Amino acid sequence: MELFFSDNIDGQLCRLDKEESGHCIRVLRHRKGDEISIIDGLGTKYLCKISKDDPSAAEAIITGSEKNWGSHPYHLHLAVCPTKNADRYEWMMEKATEIGVDVISPIIGEHSERKIFKTDRARKILLSATKQSLKGAVPSINEASSVRNFIIENGTGNMDGCLKLIAYCFDGEDMERTSIKEILNKSHDHEIMIMIGPEGDFSKEEAHLAIDNGFIPIHLGESRLRTETAGLTACEAVYLHFMK
Amino acid sequence: MELFFSDNIDGQLCRLDKEESGHCIRVLRHRKGDEISIIDGLGTKYLCKISKDDPSAAEAIITGSEKNWGSHPYHLHLAVCPTKNADRYEWMMEKATEIGVDVISPIIGEHSERKIFKTDRARKILLSATKQSLKGAVPSINEASSVRNFIIENGTGNMDGCLKLIAYCFDGEDMERTSIKEILNKSHDHEIMIMIGPEGDFSKEEAHLAIDNGFIPIHLGESRLRTETAGLTACEAVYLHFMK
Repeated sequence: MELFFSDNIDGQLCRLDKEESGHCIRVLRHRKGDEISIIDGLGTKYLCKISKDDPSAAEAIITGSEKNWGSHPYHLHLAVCPTKNADRYEWMMEKATEIGVDVISPIIGEHSERKIFKTDRARKILLSATKQSLKGAVPSINEASSVRNFIIENGTGNMDGCLKLIAYCFDGEDMERTSIKEILNKSHDHEIMIMIGPEGDFSKEEAHLAIDNGFIPIHLGESRLRTETAGLTACEAVYLHFMK
Repeated sequence: MELFFSDNIDGQLCRLDKEESGHCIRVLRHRKGDEISIIDGLGTKYLCKISKDDPSAAEAIITGSEKNWGSHPYHLHLAVCPTKNADRYEWMMEKATEIGVDVISPIIGEHSERKIFKTDRARKILLSATKQSLKGAVPSINEASSVRNFIIENGTGNMDGCLKLIAYCFDGEDMERTSIKEILNKSHDHEIMIMIGPEGDFSKEEAHLAIDNGFIPIHLGESRLRTETAGLTACEAVYLHFMK
């Protein structure tokens, strides 16, 4: 199924932007009267009929709609430190979108080697993976922030009713971790936030700050996982937890 | 931790091949008397002292060993159809190795677009991912075979005591599927084999043949996953099932 995206929907009229119009009209040779499917990126898929086959500004009339199309029964916010190799993060974003994620936050830790993150490129990857996996909602991507700011903004008093987890690799006094599986099995929350550290892990100070702010320390099992694999494993754990 | 690989261990002597010797002696500048760690690819890590620092034929004396190093509490055989884009399969092999897999079989289905698979390149990826994730055992890779032959070779009467699963996307008479999570929760087997189809899915004939030969039909949840994501999700489901 070929899907188009529009964030310009006005009543019964969907307007495609230049890129989507070109793909629809010039590349796929759709013409006035053809039926196409358009997602709004917020969760709804519209069945539409092309009313204007302009290759730089196509329009279509809505004839039907399906809310929460391809949705999942949880809300997952993955906050993952960018990897040294940008491809690996992009791969993780693509796979997490296929499986089911709602928000991705690139966070920069004390031990992060990569401190810059391009959200424009990330948005394109997320939209493409959303279309590929037949979902109506595109995961949102936040601008990069420091681990400290992320913890404080999402700490105790904010985001209550959300299960907040931080995965790190070290143990120590007051820093013992339980497995993500055990924590999910004990919880009844459907809203989950998981922090994953960089190649050099979170610093102990960051982990302490997170714990002091209501994040529960977890591990992802016995295997030694790369940052992007840890991010994906956390996503799979939530997906499988809610699988029937 | 830097790990080297040797499949030439004779009593207390480990011989490194040309590539590993070059990496150890020329690139990392290790010299006679240095301590290094060597895996045999079968599960054991050896602590060794270099006895010959020849950059094309290094040798080391074993001073200690650890069996089942970085092992996991299950035996997983993933039989996955090669993806059109070879990179995507390689990515899946790398990630499955990090998480924990024992055998990978490339299988060619009726709907497979890619019918050729390079096992030599796959072996290098598996070795590299094994070292990266600090494990002693390198997953083995089989030569490509057809889905039909794979089913018959591993069907009823062979591989008994192994939980055999086939994931496909269609439903139909006698073809209803249960989730991988439910099947794993019901089973007590530690030896698991999972078949994953190509982009165009298994044919109904292949699925029927598998069911007739003792494979249980499963699904991987509501999300529409690419072949390589399905392979990884199956691996994660097993990993998380055995997580404490």
